[in-house]
Amino acid sequence: MSQPHSLYGKHAATLDQALTAIRDRGYWSAFNESPSPRVYGEDAAPRGKAAFDAYLGADFPLDQPGTTGRVATEKSPFGIRLDVRYPHAGADALLAAAAAALPAWRDAGPQTRVGVCLEILARLSENIFELANAVQFTSGQAFVMAFQAGGAHALDRALEALAYAYAEMTRTPAEAHWEKPAGAKGSAEPLRLMKTWHIVPRGIGLVIGCNTFPTWNSYPGLFASLVTGNPVMIKPHPRAVLPLAITVKHAREVLAEAGFDPNLVTLAAEESGEGLASVLALRPEVRIVDFTGSTEYGDWLEANARQAVVYTEKAGVNTVIVDGCDNFAGMCNNIAFSLVLYSGQMCTAPQNILIPREGIATEAGHKSFDEVAGGIAAAVGKLTGDPARAVELTGAIVNDGVLERLERVRDSGEILLDSQEVTHPAFGDAVVRTPVVIKLDADSEQTYGEEWFGPISFVVATDSTQHSLEVFRRTVGRRGALTASVYSCDDKVLEFAERAALDVGVHLSANLTDGVFVNQSAAFSDFHGSGANAAANSVLTDGAYVASRFRIVQSRRHA
Amino acid sequence: MSQPHSLYGKHAATLDQALTAIRDRGYWSAFNESPSPRVYGEDAAPRGKAAFDAYLGADFPLDQPGTTGRVATEKSPFGIRLDVRYPHAGADALLAAAAAALPAWRDAGPQTRVGVCLEILARLSENIFELANAVQFTSGQAFVMAFQAGGAHALDRALEALAYAYAEMTRTPAEAHWEKPAGAKGSAEPLRLMKTWHIVPRGIGLVIGCNTFPTWNSYPGLFASLVTGNPVMIKPHPRAVLPLAITVKHAREVLAEAGFDPNLVTLAAEESGEGLASVLALRPEVRIVDFTGSTEYGDWLEANARQAVVYTEKAGVNTVIVDGCDNFAGMCNNIAFSLVLYSGQMCTAPQNILIPREGIATEAGHKSFDEVAGGIAAAVGKLTGDPARAVELTGAIVNDGVLERLERVRDSGEILLDSQEVTHPAFGDAVVRTPVVIKLDADSEQTYGEEWFGPISFVVATDSTQHSLEVFRRTVGRRGALTASVYSCDDKVLEFAERAALDVGVHLSANLTDGVFVNQSAAFSDFHGSGANAAANSVLTDGAYVASRFRIVQSRRHA
Repeated sequence: MSQPHSLYGKHAATLDQALTAIRDRGYWSAFNESPSPRVYGEDAAPRGKAAFDAYLGADFPLDQPGTTGRVATEKSPFGIRLDVRYPHAGADALLAAAAAALPAWRDAGPQTRVGVCLEILARLSENIFELANAVQFTSGQAFVMAFQAGGAHALDRALEALAYAYAEMTRTPAEAHWEKPAGAKGSAEPLRLMKTWHIVPRGIGLVIGCNTFPTWNSYPGLFASLVTGNPVMIKPHPRAVLPLAITVKHAREVLAEAGFDPNLVTLAAEESGEGLASVLALRPEVRIVDFTGSTEYGDWLEANARQAVVYTEKAGVNTVIVDGCDNFAGMCNNIAFSLVLYSGQMCTAPQNILIPREGIATEAGHKSFDEVAGGIAAAVGKLTGDPARAVELTGAIVNDGVLERLERVRDSGEILLDSQEVTHPAFGDAVVRTPVVIKLDADSEQTYGEEWFGPISFVVATDSTQHSLEVFRRTVGRRGALTASVYSCDDKVLEFAERAALDVGVHLSANLTDGVFVNQSAAFSDFHGSGANAAANSVLTDGAYVASRFRIVQSRRHA
Repeated sequence: MSQPHSLYGKHAATLDQALTAIRDRGYWSAFNESPSPRVYGEDAAPRGKAAFDAYLGADFPLDQPGTTGRVATEKSPFGIRLDVRYPHAGADALLAAAAAALPAWRDAGPQTRVGVCLEILARLSENIFELANAVQFTSGQAFVMAFQAGGAHALDRALEALAYAYAEMTRTPAEAHWEKPAGAKGSAEPLRLMKTWHIVPRGIGLVIGCNTFPTWNSYPGLFASLVTGNPVMIKPHPRAVLPLAITVKHAREVLAEAGFDPNLVTLAAEESGEGLASVLALRPEVRIVDFTGSTEYGDWLEANARQAVVYTEKAGVNTVIVDGCDNFAGMCNNIAFSLVLYSGQMCTAPQNILIPREGIATEAGHKSFDEVAGGIAAAVGKLTGDPARAVELTGAIVNDGVLERLERVRDSGEILLDSQEVTHPAFGDAVVRTPVVIKLDADSEQTYGEEWFGPISFVVATDSTQHSLEVFRRTVGRRGALTASVYSCDDKVLEFAERAALDVGVHLSANLTDGVFVNQSAAFSDFHGSGANAAANSVLTDGAYVASRFRIVQSRRHA
């Protein structure tokens, strides 16, 4: 193997810090989450906005092989006209181009590949405002959230995946001298072999993007596959193409500048309903699939894309167990914030809030079930009372499926807090809805036992905290969950909750009242998903997420 | 988590050495492969033989739950009467017992688990002669091979799997303090969280043993699953139960002595043809399956045991590419030895020897195809000419399936060297056969393009080395292979062969002439299988082999 590309040296310090961070798992971040001009420079925001605006109503500039036409499928939750026209190509042309790009990328070795991938992250970071605008106007996230989750945090998650993959590729040396002492098997001389180990990619990676977090959920799989030597095709959600088109554009530019075939990263845009993901996922050349979305389609991929390793994040029933607290207002506000943020359209947002029907003990004495439920509802109401402030938290509703559920759920129980239409002060056509909070009894498991994606939550009256734990075990055990939280001042209850969380394989947050919310996970420290329940078969990011994306092939000869 | 068990401290130095060995991949071994009394003590061999003899014709001493009867299914390739009667239980009882054992084992933590597993290896090593006798008389391996491959090397492979799994479990700390600096999100105070990470097993592991290498092929999966917290059920091949029954017995004793439920390791013996593996593999409680055996059954497991992660080693077409050499006798002897050893009944033994029909250049001038093929056949003949010496290499034929193939293959081409029946000097009823070598043309791919497991090899006449490489790519690309080797004095050819090996994902040995053979792989240095072709979906042992056997579940609270 030749010397690594100079981009490896350029980014080696960042890589080192990331490698340390994934071992320590304390706080660390490589990409600043503040959109302030003091951080990114005075011209960054206007430059990003201008770049975004230039894409609208135009052919998106991607020079990919096999383009036979253009597709424009996006509809902004903020009601603005997007009408970006993406290249559309047949599967054969894109797959052939990807396959042709593989050998040189494989042979470049781990150092060069990680250097190039880190340069792609740096390029995306330079253009983070462009990315943030694209995420905002396709996903419906408010700007700050789009900048953070869709920009800085997505880049952190990408870097985390690169670090894990790099550590995994380099735990085996590139070569070693093997010497078995004389005397073994009666040999008079030592046996000496020179051994070489090559990192070999599986084939082509397919990343299937989602509507709500097109970058955050796609970047780990994209970069984990790419850095381990696999060309990657990105099939974006038809309603959230632009953030990934921008990603592909910058990635291709960096690849070409570094002397590699840009077809290592391609965009596989499609018409709505075309079903391109299913066509690609079953192709023999595709050996890795990363998917975020519905349980139904994730299960289909796992069952049918048998030639590939399939990493899925699906739906679940995120749950809060309320047993007691020593900061009633803090608890209500914390839960309320996690319901309001992006209108509950995060895969990590709580849905079921389990409260004993006899009420709970707090620092202000006993609170009845209705007082607890009412406290949470009131806190939601307060966060969403002023339209101008509300929309900066809620963003807009990502698609009509959410509106349909929001309507349908009204018949399921007593409405404690109704969803409101809010007029966005800046975008008159934006579709904004505040959360609905519905009261249910524990026996309505047919309702709360499945996911109602969107600004929908249930306060569920249980017989006791022990009953809450049983409901938690049963519902999460069956449907899975990405997050869980518990509020209690009783160490025994906290221990039981942690034990239950271990048994059903869900990450648990206990007694969050300050500026940390159950639906937020920090790269390099919090794992996202556990792979230990039905909500996901994999984790962002651990060893298992990267180790099967490549293979090691060895050769040996007498030294 | 409480303090680790004292067995962790007892074996920490060995673990440390193993952790270093898997990073360096030079020569290292923890278990001495010499059956000499100078190594293991004067009484070790007779004590092991006596222990073995005591099992014969008796109820095997295993105190497992749910035993409803006994099964005796073994038939020794050496013709001696075994008639060991193993407990037979219903799947429900064994699975329930395993599930009940899980929580305390999970909660014991990685250090305690690895300490207990290392003590099991130490106990097996103390009883290595007992194990070697059991392997010899069930698999048909000659004694020294049974001692080495079935004893010391199997224990080394087990230790290697423990080291990988331990490294994987401990790359995430058990806990960490997370502190996000003040100023982020406008907060005046830093945000502080205390985070805890738990290693959580997937569920129950099922290990399906094979007839030829009951310990070597089962130990990595057994110990990788066990140390990561999963109870393990071992379903032995009905004709090679004893080595695994002995393993289970010692493992259960160590587990009980260490204060754990012995049902963490159970033996699931069955009647021949009962199909217990398929019943167990589909049970929802079984979340990991390790299998070595036929492609047909391995493929079935991969397709059907969907609730589990499935690790398989299957069949393939191991290939030798002969282009030229500078040591003709050395080459012929080396290839011949790898054909004779255990009568070619190793999954790594070569089958197809590709030689240009125009012959090759050697240090002794040009050799025609017939001279090369004849040289190899003659070397095989020499190794097997004297029965007393031959049987110490060939051992005995593992089962009737091999005899059937040995008969059937005779019609496939010109017999260059015929298989001989050999009378074993010590075991008159042993079934011993020497290798058959058959000449084929490259266009007989329907014959040599699939695996003929047993002492069967083909010398295949190709148009040229380039043609050999094409045949190699095509046959291994389609059917897979665990090993490949090349002989050439031309650096270009060696490079092309290595490139082809990378493309079809097979480990390559180049120009082996001394005491290293293509079918031997050394733990801690050589990977066994690549997972990159159809012969195996996994590797003994790499990160991917261990990383998905457990999950990480976290909890966090304000610090």
